[in-house]
Amino acid sequence: MASSDLLYFASDNTSGIHPEVLAAIGRANAGFVKPYGEDAYTESAIAAMRAEFGERAEVLFTFNGTGANVVGLGAIARSFEAVYCADCSHIWSDECAAPEKFLGGKLIPVPSAYGKISPEAVAGSLGEDRGVHHAAPKVISITQPTEWGTVYRPEEVQALADFAHERDMVLHVDGARLSNAAAALNTSLSAISTDIGVDVLSFGGTKNGLMGGEAIVFSDSAFAQHAGYLRKQATQLASKMRFIAVQFEALLTDELWRRNAAHANAMAARLAVSIGEIDEIEFTCPVEINALFPRLEKSFIAPLQERCVFYLWDEKASIARWMTSFSTTPADVDAFAELIHEVARKNVAASSVSALTNS
Amino acid sequence: MASSDLLYFASDNTSGIHPEVLAAIGRANAGFVKPYGEDAYTESAIAAMRAEFGERAEVLFTFNGTGANVVGLGAIARSFEAVYCADCSHIWSDECAAPEKFLGGKLIPVPSAYGKISPEAVAGSLGEDRGVHHAAPKVISITQPTEWGTVYRPEEVQALADFAHERDMVLHVDGARLSNAAAALNTSLSAISTDIGVDVLSFGGTKNGLMGGEAIVFSDSAFAQHAGYLRKQATQLASKMRFIAVQFEALLTDELWRRNAAHANAMAARLAVSIGEIDEIEFTCPVEINALFPRLEKSFIAPLQERCVFYLWDEKASIARWMTSFSTTPADVDAFAELIHEVARKNVAASSVSALTNS
Amino acid sequence: MASSDLLYFASDNTSGIHPEVLAAIGRANAGFVKPYGEDAYTESAIAAMRAEFGERAEVLFTFNGTGANVVGLGAIARSFEAVYCADCSHIWSDECAAPEKFLGGKLIPVPSAYGKISPEAVAGSLGEDRGVHHAAPKVISITQPTEWGTVYRPEEVQALADFAHERDMVLHVDGARLSNAAAALNTSLSAISTDIGVDVLSFGGTKNGLMGGEAIVFSDSAFAQHAGYLRKQATQLASKMRFIAVQFEALLTDELWRRNAAHANAMAARLAVSIGEIDEIEFTCPVEINALFPRLEKSFIAPLQERCVFYLWDEKASIARWMTSFSTTPADVDAFAELIHEVARKNVAASSVSALTNS
Amino acid sequence: MASSDLLYFASDNTSGIHPEVLAAIGRANAGFVKPYGEDAYTESAIAAMRAEFGERAEVLFTFNGTGANVVGLGAIARSFEAVYCADCSHIWSDECAAPEKFLGGKLIPVPSAYGKISPEAVAGSLGEDRGVHHAAPKVISITQPTEWGTVYRPEEVQALADFAHERDMVLHVDGARLSNAAAALNTSLSAISTDIGVDVLSFGGTKNGLMGGEAIVFSDSAFAQHAGYLRKQATQLASKMRFIAVQFEALLTDELWRRNAAHANAMAARLAVSIGEIDEIEFTCPVEINALFPRLEKSFIAPLQERCVFYLWDEKASIARWMTSFSTTPADVDAFAELIHEVARKNVAASSVSALTNS
Repeated sequence: MASSDLLYFASDNTSGIHPEVLAAIGRANAGFVKPYGEDAYTESAIAAMRAEFGERAEVLFTFNGTGANVVGLGAIARSFEAVYCADCSHIWSDECAAPEKFLGGKLIPVPSAYGKISPEAVAGSLGEDRGVHHAAPKVISITQPTEWGTVYRPEEVQALADFAHERDMVLHVDGARLSNAAAALNTSLSAISTDIGVDVLSFGGTKNGLMGGEAIVFSDSAFAQHAGYLRKQATQLASKMRFIAVQFEALLTDELWRRNAAHANAMAARLAVSIGEIDEIEFTCPVEINALFPRLEKSFIAPLQERCVFYLWDEKASIARWMTSFSTTPADVDAFAELIHEVARKNVAASSVSALTNS
Repeated sequence: MASSDLLYFASDNTSGIHPEVLAAIGRANAGFVKPYGEDAYTESAIAAMRAEFGERAEVLFTFNGTGANVVGLGAIARSFEAVYCADCSHIWSDECAAPEKFLGGKLIPVPSAYGKISPEAVAGSLGEDRGVHHAAPKVISITQPTEWGTVYRPEEVQALADFAHERDMVLHVDGARLSNAAAALNTSLSAISTDIGVDVLSFGGTKNGLMGGEAIVFSDSAFAQHAGYLRKQATQLASKMRFIAVQFEALLTDELWRRNAAHANAMAARLAVSIGEIDEIEFTCPVEINALFPRLEKSFIAPLQERCVFYLWDEKASIARWMTSFSTTPADVDAFAELIHEVARKNVAASSVSALTNS
Repeated sequence: MASSDLLYFASDNTSGIHPEVLAAIGRANAGFVKPYGEDAYTESAIAAMRAEFGERAEVLFTFNGTGANVVGLGAIARSFEAVYCADCSHIWSDECAAPEKFLGGKLIPVPSAYGKISPEAVAGSLGEDRGVHHAAPKVISITQPTEWGTVYRPEEVQALADFAHERDMVLHVDGARLSNAAAALNTSLSAISTDIGVDVLSFGGTKNGLMGGEAIVFSDSAFAQHAGYLRKQATQLASKMRFIAVQFEALLTDELWRRNAAHANAMAARLAVSIGEIDEIEFTCPVEINALFPRLEKSFIAPLQERCVFYLWDEKASIARWMTSFSTTPADVDAFAELIHEVARKNVAASSVSALTNS
Repeated sequence: MASSDLLYFASDNTSGIHPEVLAAIGRANAGFVKPYGEDAYTESAIAAMRAEFGERAEVLFTFNGTGANVVGLGAIARSFEAVYCADCSHIWSDECAAPEKFLGGKLIPVPSAYGKISPEAVAGSLGEDRGVHHAAPKVISITQPTEWGTVYRPEEVQALADFAHERDMVLHVDGARLSNAAAALNTSLSAISTDIGVDVLSFGGTKNGLMGGEAIVFSDSAFAQHAGYLRKQATQLASKMRFIAVQFEALLTDELWRRNAAHANAMAARLAVSIGEIDEIEFTCPVEINALFPRLEKSFIAPLQERCVFYLWDEKASIARWMTSFSTTPADVDAFAELIHEVARKNVAASSVSALTNS
């Protein structure tokens, strides 16, 4: 089977560039502009971001999500200050210690339930004040939506913000897929971030139709004081900045972010519905965004992966992750659902045969 | 009550210098010698360490335990490699992110049972191989004896060493109180470290009678290749090295390390026996070395701390830590035991009054 | 005057995307592929790079030049090892201490002559061996072409490589504009890098027509052992890697790198010729690539900057940098030359008036 | 010749412990006290330090000079901020990149004249403001007395302080031998530091009679805000702090610091006088403290080093460093002077013979 015939439900980053975004890149490719963000394209994109996240917001574009995270965290935490994050969070598990390296400091994993942490869980991890012997608690970092595809309700975010602020801590959000959460909740982007106490945010673009680009949003310039230097030092300052900026402006134009995210979410919902009830597949958590986490009978895995690219999320527990994107089509979903049913049917047949043979 | 009348059961680092150690410092204070360890005193101390830990061992002296840990770990792990350690370990909780800072990398806390981690627990934390996205597993670090005063049996250490080596990982031991473990097990120091697969060891002196000094012991020079530079870069190279070296030589002379540790252990055992059975005090784990971890009824804490310095180990759980040292006397122990019984009697009396009043 | 009417001779990064590169991005925007470089586009681009730099080469793409530099250097130097570089080099002066941050170590500036360093100059900076007290010499890093637009001859690079290798050091080249050097020397890319002892190379794309992308080229996989992890940890691993990869493949197709660089070089030469001899302008070093470094009479600066964007390279010495790119047109050059002559004429006139007035 | 018969003019850190200091350690070795500086000895030593350096001063003790330097610098500079220091300074050349490692940032060497830098030299190194591309100038660090044994006059320090403060920068002094400077200038310690604009100071003890210990002095608590955490993270927090504290109290008692330093200085002066005029020896800079930097005819070096331990400061230039300490005796000096004259005489004789032979 040709690689091009494979289905891709591995991640939203297997998708390409949304046509409106690519067109924006093409339009910006005219003439010369100053580098490093001192250009009209970047100015305009930042204005669009402020219209979305608040006029007091400071916005810096970066190349990728890990870059946005380390610069955002570096702007608010020093080396002797600790960042509390979910034990399954991207910054904890999937950035190869880039945060520890850049901060020169400590991340502390907090027990999570399908990706979410609560004020109580953070409180449990804070422990007692040990003075200089322990890194000083400074940041709570959550992922919205979580790595398990669950969505914090606004009041849950607000509660964490309040908890943080009462302790002179700061709330950071890794919003690599923030658009999917806002689409799922049918809110604006700011209604689940800068409006309700989120101090620093990584706002993702790459997974939602950009060629590549993320934004750090500081709710207030006080948090952003050193961010420009830190972005440069973190190797995240683009010289031809205009080409990241116009991608973001495209994403904010006519709510492309919502159109893309809502579509991706809908494709995941369609897949859940299309699969329906199959004995050997159990969904471990509700499908709230563009991801499904089915627990599969092990015999399903090989036949499915032969024709569809996806990751095992937890091999031991036999949990897979299926993820849709802005460019997943209903036909893709239906083909995958049909494949799943086909494998299930064969499985049943095999069991019957086996049952017959064994009887 | 004068401060000098207080009892100290807070930590073995509240003690001073053992007379044999102070005498050794005095003897070494004659004339000039080359700095930074290029002197006969240091040479002799290293020879004594090799007699203890094996002729292939490489030994570097440092100022303190955190210094020994970060240099030892830095010699074996690069920034993208992870160190797996107990979730209550000193390197995880009590070194203000010095390891993360110096390594530029990641520590991963492993669930522990009264301070101990098992191969199974490490295996559970290792998770699946995520390639470059996750820091590569490189080091297992255990504390012997643990922060809870429990002692790994040699076969437990060996099992962890085997587990590590099978995975091309390295076993590091934070042995800030290794002498107390060896005294408790009645073994040599090497029998619980370099003889059974421990690759890198922090061997503590400060808590066992030195004025100040720790040693890093590499079981083989291959691990120590960069250690000299790293010690310097970690700010842990003493110019007047002779005065650390002679402390270690004194510690190894006539097994002062064992005499001190055995005494400290015995004082803890005496305290446990002297306390006996008191309803409001429950020992949370066996007393194996020089530390006790009693769960106290909350009403006990204030009256005890008025006359004895000790820490609450887990305030929420009302668990204290009582620790003895080489210089704790039987009289100190008996005075503390008497104080505890006194508080217990008053407590009973108060309860009776309260019961009468309430009835 | 409208901003769009300004001339841009500030830097080659004020240019946009070469049409062949943009077209390649568009072509790659079809369907799904695996992320992080596990795709056929990346495989093909790496093969093209190996055809250029040698079959033993290891190639990793990054977002930008600082990223390529820190990952390349991090792969070959540890925190206690020193990198010797020109005192005007980009890694020393223009990366906001990103190399020191990522390496956790030391860069040592070597006196340079119009950007070049020699074995003698490095030898002078090496000083005597101070053992662990001084960071151990490990890397010589040169910029080819230099920040002053001068070009190392192959034999000069070879001499530095020999000098390095004799001392068990490694030669690193920051080749952000390597194409311009190869075009100037009329050689292949490897003839001035991997063929003659360069061990690690940052090969630039952004300044030569890409939207954004750089490559790290290791002459041998031995140097690249940890590079994958380091790229991730340095925040330089792109998820939608195909879009960087295809830019590089476009750059290597039909020697677009040479066509672009040769054009940029030619435009700089045309500018030099068009200016001709003007008393108040002195070129401080030969025009070898796409940059000119004129020492200007101070009265020239404001009128020129009113209509042309360029930087002062050394304000005190009144030296400007004029830089052309693949997209600079002969008309741009002629307009700028005409502007310069116009300012010169006014200047002469003003002097005459002033002379008359003063006489 | 037995090693014990060697003369030591290598460094003041070849000396031992002053008897008053050792006695203080002995006196402090009674009973238990709280660790980590929460004890009466430390309180008292800090009070003594404040009496010396000003009541607003914040004082933290560390193990060694590199530790004091990195913590002091870390308290005032962030990773993207640069430290300007003499190109021969200890932090630049002799700390194995510990400052770069701990700061995660950049030191910039400034041309010096026999160890001194001037505001003009710093200004020359500052260059133009390059925004986020260049590490932001934040600290000027000088060594007083310098590594060449020269002494900044108070007005020179003041001028650097003014220069720094005008630019919102901070003046740091590495005062590993500050006592020798104060003794040479016949001033108090504060008169050449905290009284005249020095913001952060490493005050040395080890080279002036302590067993081991340095102090960081912040002129104002504003600079010390994070210093406690940073000291811990830098592995420089001693658990048995009392034994460093009492050394400092002894050093400040009856001006032991001055007695020791004045003696060491006097011994260096005596050596200079005793040598007198020898054709083959030229002193490269004035003997202001306890160090001499003679340029020796190469034939002198081996015979001298056979019986006296000293370092070559600059091997190529044939410059040695001869250093005295608090424990250098007049007899030591006279023996060394006699040795030098003896070598000189033999040298002359050999020349004569050679001259005769050649004639």
